[in-house]
Amino acid sequence: MRKDHRSECLINLMVEMLGDQWSLLVIRDIIFMDRRHFRELLTESIEGIASNILADRLQRLVKQGIIVKSRDASHKQKAVYSLTERGIDLLPLLMEMVVWGHKHLPPARPRGLARVLEEGGPKLRAEFMSELRGTHLGKSMRPKSVRRLTKSRGSLAMRKLQAAYEAELAGRRQ
Amino acid sequence: MRKDHRSECLINLMVEMLGDQWSLLVIRDIIFMDRRHFRELLTESIEGIASNILADRLQRLVKQGIIVKSRDASHKQKAVYSLTERGIDLLPLLMEMVVWGHKHLPPARPRGLARVLEEGGPKLRAEFMSELRGTHLGKSMRPKSVRRLTKSRGSLAMRKLQAAYEAELAGRRQ
Repeated sequence: MRKDHRSECLINLMVEMLGDQWSLLVIRDIIFMDRRHFRELLTESIEGIASNILADRLQRLVKQGIIVKSRDASHKQKAVYSLTERGIDLLPLLMEMVVWGHKHLPPARPRGLARVLEEGGPKLRAEFMSELRGTHLGKSMRPKSVRRLTKSRGSLAMRKLQAAYEAELAGRRQ
Repeated sequence: MRKDHRSECLINLMVEMLGDQWSLLVIRDIIFMDRRHFRELLTESIEGIASNILADRLQRLVKQGIIVKSRDASHKQKAVYSLTERGIDLLPLLMEMVVWGHKHLPPARPRGLARVLEEGGPKLRAEFMSELRGTHLGKSMRPKSVRRLTKSRGSLAMRKLQAAYEAELAGRRQ
């Protein structure tokens, strides 16, 4: 019997790293909802994450190099979280989850995000990742108002995906 | 504060469904190592899964419609587990995990599986999925010897991926 609890299989390392559902849900909210502050991530969480769990997962994600924490330029007291390159690279994984769920889970409500992802294909995914790079990498010091402005000007893929995601969540809350 | 612990976000449903690392590791062993019996899944598990956990996760995966349990034609006492269509559809997700880990986790050992996946691209993925359909869907009653024979004749993608994965695990055990 070969037992190696420190298995280095990549799939095992991935599941060990992402640990539990909360890590992935926090990443989801940062990516799709552009939530960058602790308070937003806490109060707007659709699953109602507890504040100690959120704090723990953010710290863990920082340690894992998936996000970085820095000071918000507009509110010196406030920390802002930004994705790193390895964080942005989790997008294809999240998208495969959406695609799978869209195909195999009972369609309780319209699934706007999945439809937009499917129609957009690899091109939309690439655009969205490049936009996330613009928003998160090396630009974490800009105040949210500027980020929103930039986004509403340039980043079509992000607006499309976020609008679809928000519409979807709104639909589910009714 | 919007709190909805039964959030229907697809990503949330996915992470809730897959539950913990063991579910994914069991699926990994069925897909990449063609382990179809309880005993194989137990004794050959590189992470040393406990027998009660394995039993629980197999039951859960059956309930979720990701695998089905049936009698092995050659050993009437033995149960054999086969992937369903929704189980096979988890392959792209596992592949994205491998791709991410290959890119971002420290390369302790050569990563044969990731390299084969990258070089093979979407074509290899499609071939492998179509082979899994052949092996698992509606053919779960055939004895392992026949399955192995069929595989060694026809299914190049599966052999390629499994060889790479086995070589990788062997390298890691040294």
